[in-house]
Order: sequence, then structure tokens, then C-alpha cells
Amino acid sequence: MRTLVIGLGSMGFGAAVSCVRAGIQTTGFDVNPDALKRFQAQGGQSIQSLDSCSGIDCVLIFVVNSTQVESVLFESDLLSKLNPNALVINCVTLAPSKAIEIAKNVQGSGFRYIDAPVSGGAAKALDGQMSIMASGAPHAMRDAKPVFEAVSEHVFELGDDPGHGSQMKLVNQLLAGVHIAAAAEAMNLAASLNMDLHQVIDVISKCAGSSWMFENRAPHIADGDYTPLSSVNIFVKDLGIVTDEASRHDAVTPLSDAALSLYQKASESGLGSEDDSAIVKILAQRSNGTLPGSDT
Amino acid sequence: MRTLVIGLGSMGFGAAVSCVRAGIQTTGFDVNPDALKRFQAQGGQSIQSLDSCSGIDCVLIFVVNSTQVESVLFESDLLSKLNPNALVINCVTLAPSKAIEIAKNVQGSGFRYIDAPVSGGAAKALDGQMSIMASGAPHAMRDAKPVFEAVSEHVFELGDDPGHGSQMKLVNQLLAGVHIAAAAEAMNLAASLNMDLHQVIDVISKCAGSSWMFENRAPHIADGDYTPLSSVNIFVKDLGIVTDEASRHDAVTPLSDAALSLYQKASESGLGSEDDSAIVKILAQRSNGTLPGSDT
Repeated sequence: MRTLVIGLGSMGFGAAVSCVRAGIQTTGFDVNPDALKRFQAQGGQSIQSLDSCSGIDCVLIFVVNSTQVESVLFESDLLSKLNPNALVINCVTLAPSKAIEIAKNVQGSGFRYIDAPVSGGAAKALDGQMSIMASGAPHAMRDAKPVFEAVSEHVFELGDDPGHGSQMKLVNQLLAGVHIAAAAEAMNLAASLNMDLHQVIDVISKCAGSSWMFENRAPHIADGDYTPLSSVNIFVKDLGIVTDEASRHDAVTPLSDAALSLYQKASESGLGSEDDSAIVKILAQRSNGTLPGSDT
Repeated sequence: MRTLVIGLGSMGFGAAVSCVRAGIQTTGFDVNPDALKRFQAQGGQSIQSLDSCSGIDCVLIFVVNSTQVESVLFESDLLSKLNPNALVINCVTLAPSKAIEIAKNVQGSGFRYIDAPVSGGAAKALDGQMSIMASGAPHAMRDAKPVFEAVSEHVFELGDDPGHGSQMKLVNQLLAGVHIAAAAEAMNLAASLNMDLHQVIDVISKCAGSSWMFENRAPHIADGDYTPLSSVNIFVKDLGIVTDEASRHDAVTPLSDAALSLYQKASESGLGSEDDSAIVKILAQRSNGTLPGSDT
């Protein structure tokens, strides 16, 4: 199965490397030449333009947003390079309505579509241990199995229609985005109380206040290290989709609104490309404590 | 070591039963006669008035708030019933400044004090598997060891002075209270999107959006079962302490503020004695979905 991975960022890179490791014939594409070099260094084949590919059976899409998805699918010659009945597996976080619209256009061109957002972070992606929230026709899910097995630990099969995968991802991003903000708020309070931040992590991780995101992100704050694994701007986008979709369905989201406001303020303050835990700096500006690594 | 447990609610009951199970000579006290009967049914000895106790070496306090702590310690004859140098182990969630004040008064009367808030929920309490966030003098911690071993899985020793335990508990309650609210918001969104709520729990529990509280409370919402394990009013109190203490130290808490507002609205709507996950009903009133067990 000749597979093309589009978008070699933290998740796409891990997925592409995992496919290579599993013996799948994999080509990688990214607009960033450094990403292509990194992939080549891992034994992957890369192309510098989507025009250069041909005979593709399976496309895995890991770009940033819906505009980029539509651009690679419908504003390039990509679809003309795919074999008949090829699989288009879209791993980008999208509004469910957008996932359904894109699926219709792909299927209308004679290809198969799986709505397949992912979770797990860069480290799990690199280990082929992502979680995939997938919905699509059973024959498409069956044929995607070798690729899913290469890149993931869990594949959740959420129905035959596109949109269900994206709905689940929104629920996950609501929780993840709020939990990062809660972790930042807790660590900022602990700093204001002059507590030992590493001790806070040790204790809370074993108590009822813990979350996957607290255990993952709080150490960045305790270490004062905001090297981006996933950036502030990702949550400006994802919580924006969450709150838009909630609003379309008349669901109120006071926690997500409060968290989104922090990500937006951080982005407007020039922190958009830092690690998402850098929203703690917005809280610290309005507080009295001193965070590790800060000069205030 | 003759031990008196004051307050046989969900946590205190579990702690008292765990002490009995460990062979510690344990007396239980509660103002609720039903709680005393439950404790007797588990083999415990109980008293109907604090005046009835004598020769106590160790007091474990599990009442609801600081007013009740001060009432049992300083407005009863309790201190006169304690043996010299007895241990007073306060497991109630308090503002750190209040824990320090109470400690001074207890120590001024010739007794030893451990600031020892707990975490883990009723089920862990009953299994003797709580987590204890303890601070107090090393000799007091050493002498408390048999009781701590009877009731807990983890004892975090956070320093020699009262206040450090309460600080850690506040950080835990900030996270726990916000995570319950986030779980409610996520489940309400999922209901508004007509998703299968049990499937949401299965998937999210294995993804980066999970938290201890999501895994514990989201099933209550999916089952429409708001039998209180920990009530809405507990978080009206605890997030109130969190936001007050944060404000005293100039730390901003936008997520806690948003969550506290939900607990307060739920309490004002007559849901104060229901399970804390019942805050989802406040979200649902302002949303379009139908929750399990609701008649709207």
C-alpha cells in the first residue's frame, strides 16, 4: 500500500516514521524543507511538491487546519495522482460539519474517506502509539488497518459516517484545553504561595486532582521550559472550533470560554509559538508569584 | 493508641472503619445518629456527645468546615478529655492561614497538631487507601504513623509546619473542582451533539483529555445518577476557599471562578446536596441536549 503522509509536524512526522518502521512504502510531504530532511534522516522518502507523487493508495493528512486540508486536497493536483478507490485518511482536528463536507467532495471524486483525528502527543506519535478516533465505511476501515496498526495503540471505531470521529476529538480537545489551563492556574497559585513546584507535581499526580495534561504539562512550568511540543496557537484554533460547534448546537461552555481567552491573550502577547503551557505567563502577569525561568 | 474520629461522613466513616480494621481502639462521634449506627454496625464504638470521651491519645477530625473544627475543638470540653501531648490530626479542607491559627491554639493548650487534609473519595477512604497531605513536627508525624498506615495509601510529608498540607489540598481542590466542571461541560456538549455518552467515556478515558475526575464523575452523568458521593456544596465551600486564598496572594483564577459560579448556581437551584456532577444540570438548562435521566 503506497502511502503519502502530508504534513510532517509533531504528529505527522511520528506517523510517517511509524509507517516506515512498519515496512509500509511511505512518502512524506511538507512545505518546510527541514521537515523533509528530518524525515529522510529517518529513512523516509520525501517529495517537495504534491505534483511529484503518483500511484498513491492511501493519503494520511496531518496539516494544521481546514483551510490547509482543502488546499492540499482540492487546490492541488493531488486527487489526480491517487489510484482508484484510494483511501483519504484525514487526521486534522476539524468541525464535524467541515469533516462531512470534505468527505462528500472526496467521495464524489471516487475515493474513500476516513474521519480520523488523533490524540496522544508527539512522543506517542513517534512510538506508533497514537489514539485514533475514526469513523468511515467498514471496507475503508478494514483496508486502513495496516496503516492504523503502524501508527496507533488504540483505534476507536465510532461509526460508518464521517463526523463522528471529529465530534469525539472536539470533546477530547475541550477537556485537554481546559485541563492545560487548569494546570497553569494551579501551578501559578502554587508559585504565588511559594510552594515547591516539583513537590506539587509529585503529590498531585497521585491525588484526585490529576489529569493526563497536568502530568504532562505541569513539569514544563516547574522547569520553566516552554519549548513547544504542542503550541499555544493549536488551542486557539481547537478551542475556537469547540466553542463554535457548541454554540451552533446551543451548548454553553463557560470553562472552555475562560480557557480560550487565556490562549488568545497568550497568542496576542507573542507567545503563540511557545508550548501551550506558556499560558501560565498570562496568569503570572496578573499575579504575585515568580515562575521558574521568569525574570520578573 | 486510643483514637477518636470526629465526623463520620463519607471520608471520616471510611477512616474510622479503617482504624477499627487495623486493630486501633477507635471511638466515633457524629451529630447524626444514623452515622453512629452505621459505624457500630461495622464494629466501631461510638459516643453521642464529646463529653463522653476520655483518655484520648489521638483525634482525627473529619467535619465539614473551619467553623465546625473550631466548635469541636474550642467550644466543647474535648481538649480536657485528651491525654497530655495527644495528637490532633485535622483532615478538614481549610484555608492555610486558618489551619495555622487553629494549630497555634491547639499547641498552646499542650497538644500536638498535624495539618492533614486528605484526597481520594469515599471508596478509597473505606479501603484505607486515602492520600494524606500532611505537615507537622517530625515527632508528631512519627507517632501518627499507625493511624496514617491504617487509613492511607500515600502520606505526603510536606514540612514541619502546619499550613503546607492545607496549601497542597487547595491546589488539589482547584484542579478537582475545575476538572469536574470540565467533565460536565464535555458531557453536556456530547449530549447536545447526540453522541453515545458511554462511548465518550470509553474513548476519552484512553486519550489525552482524561482526568481522575472525568473517569470518576462522567459515568454519573451518563447514568443520570446523582446520588451524592461528594456533594455540590463541598465545592461551593472548597473552591470558595481556593479563590479567597488566591485573591489574598494576588493570584488570578479564571477557571476556578467559572467553575465556582456553576457550583453556586447549582446550590442556589436546590441541587446542593446532590452529587457534584449535578452541575451539568445547570449547563443543560442553558443548552439544547437531553441528559440521561432528565425529563426535559
